[in-house]
Amino acid sequence: MQTMYQQMDADALAQAIEALRAQVEEVKARGLALDMARGKPSPQQVDISRPMLDILSSDADLHDGNVDCSNYGFFEGIPSARALASEMLGVPAEQTLVLGSSSLLLEHDICGQFWRCGSLGSEPWADYSAKHNGETVKFLCPAPGYDRHFGITADLGIENVPVPMTGEGPDMDVVEAMVASDASIKGMWCVPKYSNPTGETYSEKTVRRLATMKTAAPDFRIFWDNAYCVHDLYDETDDLANIFDYTRGTENEDRVVAFVSTSKITFPGSGVAFVGASPAVIAEVSAFLKMGLISADKMNQLRHVRFLPNLDAVRSHMKKHAEFMRPRFEAVERKLAEGLGGTGCATWTHPRGGYFVSFDGPDGSAKRVAALCAQMGVKLTPAGATWPGEDPRDTNIRIAPSYPSVEELEAALDVLVLAVKLVAAELAAEERA
Amino acid sequence: MQTMYQQMDADALAQAIEALRAQVEEVKARGLALDMARGKPSPQQVDISRPMLDILSSDADLHDGNVDCSNYGFFEGIPSARALASEMLGVPAEQTLVLGSSSLLLEHDICGQFWRCGSLGSEPWADYSAKHNGETVKFLCPAPGYDRHFGITADLGIENVPVPMTGEGPDMDVVEAMVASDASIKGMWCVPKYSNPTGETYSEKTVRRLATMKTAAPDFRIFWDNAYCVHDLYDETDDLANIFDYTRGTENEDRVVAFVSTSKITFPGSGVAFVGASPAVIAEVSAFLKMGLISADKMNQLRHVRFLPNLDAVRSHMKKHAEFMRPRFEAVERKLAEGLGGTGCATWTHPRGGYFVSFDGPDGSAKRVAALCAQMGVKLTPAGATWPGEDPRDTNIRIAPSYPSVEELEAALDVLVLAVKLVAAELAAEERA
Repeated sequence: MQTMYQQMDADALAQAIEALRAQVEEVKARGLALDMARGKPSPQQVDISRPMLDILSSDADLHDGNVDCSNYGFFEGIPSARALASEMLGVPAEQTLVLGSSSLLLEHDICGQFWRCGSLGSEPWADYSAKHNGETVKFLCPAPGYDRHFGITADLGIENVPVPMTGEGPDMDVVEAMVASDASIKGMWCVPKYSNPTGETYSEKTVRRLATMKTAAPDFRIFWDNAYCVHDLYDETDDLANIFDYTRGTENEDRVVAFVSTSKITFPGSGVAFVGASPAVIAEVSAFLKMGLISADKMNQLRHVRFLPNLDAVRSHMKKHAEFMRPRFEAVERKLAEGLGGTGCATWTHPRGGYFVSFDGPDGSAKRVAALCAQMGVKLTPAGATWPGEDPRDTNIRIAPSYPSVEELEAALDVLVLAVKLVAAELAAEERA
Repeated sequence: MQTMYQQMDADALAQAIEALRAQVEEVKARGLALDMARGKPSPQQVDISRPMLDILSSDADLHDGNVDCSNYGFFEGIPSARALASEMLGVPAEQTLVLGSSSLLLEHDICGQFWRCGSLGSEPWADYSAKHNGETVKFLCPAPGYDRHFGITADLGIENVPVPMTGEGPDMDVVEAMVASDASIKGMWCVPKYSNPTGETYSEKTVRRLATMKTAAPDFRIFWDNAYCVHDLYDETDDLANIFDYTRGTENEDRVVAFVSTSKITFPGSGVAFVGASPAVIAEVSAFLKMGLISADKMNQLRHVRFLPNLDAVRSHMKKHAEFMRPRFEAVERKLAEGLGGTGCATWTHPRGGYFVSFDGPDGSAKRVAALCAQMGVKLTPAGATWPGEDPRDTNIRIAPSYPSVEELEAALDVLVLAVKLVAAELAAEERA
């Protein structure tokens, strides 16, 4: 599709650029300092979890059943926290671990374990290249996706291979064809619900195909980061199928390692993280992680489960979060539709949950838009960060609307709209020159 | 030295064995269930940290200076916590990280980093063997020492090499000779104050020699786990020299990576952990750990520093701990002296702090003593656990007196004394047969 600027005659385009540049100068003069860079809740949103802080007072019972949470022991996590993990991950409690404050760290450590030690008797991923003519180990990366995931595998020396998203998850025709024929593809990153940044949820068919597809690598592992499993904006939520329902008892039982954390449920960075997998994978992951950990912070586990004892309680709490998030997502939709609707300059997603909106401008625009926004005082996630390596068409920008107030967000989106228009107009002029 | 049983004539020895066996049967009949296995404080001792739980209530200011501790960010730790880390580690705050709840996990991850990536441009330890005729990477392990340290290096495939302890730290003549000539020795585990399990503190001379010795490996790293830095029993404490005073500004500046945690200051497993090293090493460790962590649990950091704002506050708090630990250590000394003094059957250490007493029985006795204690209802740390690999003379038992009450501890020590006597007597008889 052509942009409105590509359709203008030369004079009109020159006038449009002049007008837009004047607007940009006006905005620069206002000295804005707005941040749409990272998926952080606003301070007021964080405050809804403050009642949790009163639960473990100095006279509280610090036991969970017969587990003393105030002393060493119970590496796997306290029983109530494993029960909650079971509900959130969709596996029995015995197939869960509750560890630390960050699912990202668990993903990092478990991926590093498979790299160094292999999994369930397979050769270490680190040895693959030397044993297979220098062929690099690869990971499939649905893109646009989460930059920190791609960083973990890239840091290990794994080649990140982008796979297109379709609106109902990764393009499974592409995925199936690749994994069926290439044994160097050892795994895949997935954020299956309200995916970062597109906000799409994998369809039942996508989930089933991921669970049942044939892979050339017998030790193929899906890192199933269900970070936004309860992060709905509306009562009518996206439904995600339970991937373990399709792997349980099959030859693919060990394929999926699932992660959830409470970082965006209670206090960011100070939550508890859950892992779920097959009994065999949980056993090997436990044996590995136990080398470095006597037991995790069970006091924080206890604080969490007393505040949020089960999935129903979590869902009620998330409705309070939604009251902060919904007007922000709706402001994004409104401002983008008003500012760019019908211009041919952009498309964007319309998530019903999660933390992000994925925005695409004209080819070759994203880096220039981000730089121009920065000049106007609006910080965006670095353009291209959503792609492993380089965004091939330089179109994608991740919008993180959660942190600013609605007013600040609207101001920031006006800046983004202006930047996209000017860059689109300049691109049209350059194309002609 | 001979045991009293070796000095007996055959009849006396047979009678002694008969009498001891009868006592063992009596004890078995009592159905004891006592635990001297791990360095856990007693529940009453843990309770002295309960006032900390009231500090971060729902209406608390969750800022540390201008850092919002309730949201993402500040990977390196909050300023007040880094200031406390600086005091406890003996390096400037900029050379500290405050991360997670466990120093063991940081040791595990950082050792794994050096294994996979090397340090400051040196080749990865993982590559050493292939490039040097299959020679294994080695770590020096002062022994008896801490089993979980040895587990971390063993798990990486590093060969743990025991080094004798002298009463003022590892035998530095042995250490210096080994590291000077063998480039495959990449590092060393140290618990420099109230060492686990001997309770000895490295002398100033030992610390200086460790800091200044010549090593064949340019990337030699000392993992300086100062776990018991403030864990004194008496007002007159062991003094530990600050090893960084000897490395700062020298060619060995990057040698030492130091660790401290509050696990045995506040709540075991739910504390905060500190790392200190040279600016270059802190930078590379940060870059690595950031791959898997946005930020650590800053709420727990804030809770800790509001409760224990500086080293003086920590020392005052530790005096309360000492009131629980001192009678237990004194009970160990009293019971062992009463039961085994002058028998020639055992020697043991007399720590002025820490969590353990190191006990040595006759050659070939430790496993049998531990098994016999277990039959009598007393659980000890598995015999030999204090050694990397096997305890060569099978003499060493780690006594962990902290968890039981003084009465339970005395009962457990009576059992230990009885077991040592019977095993010593049986060994004397077997020697004669």
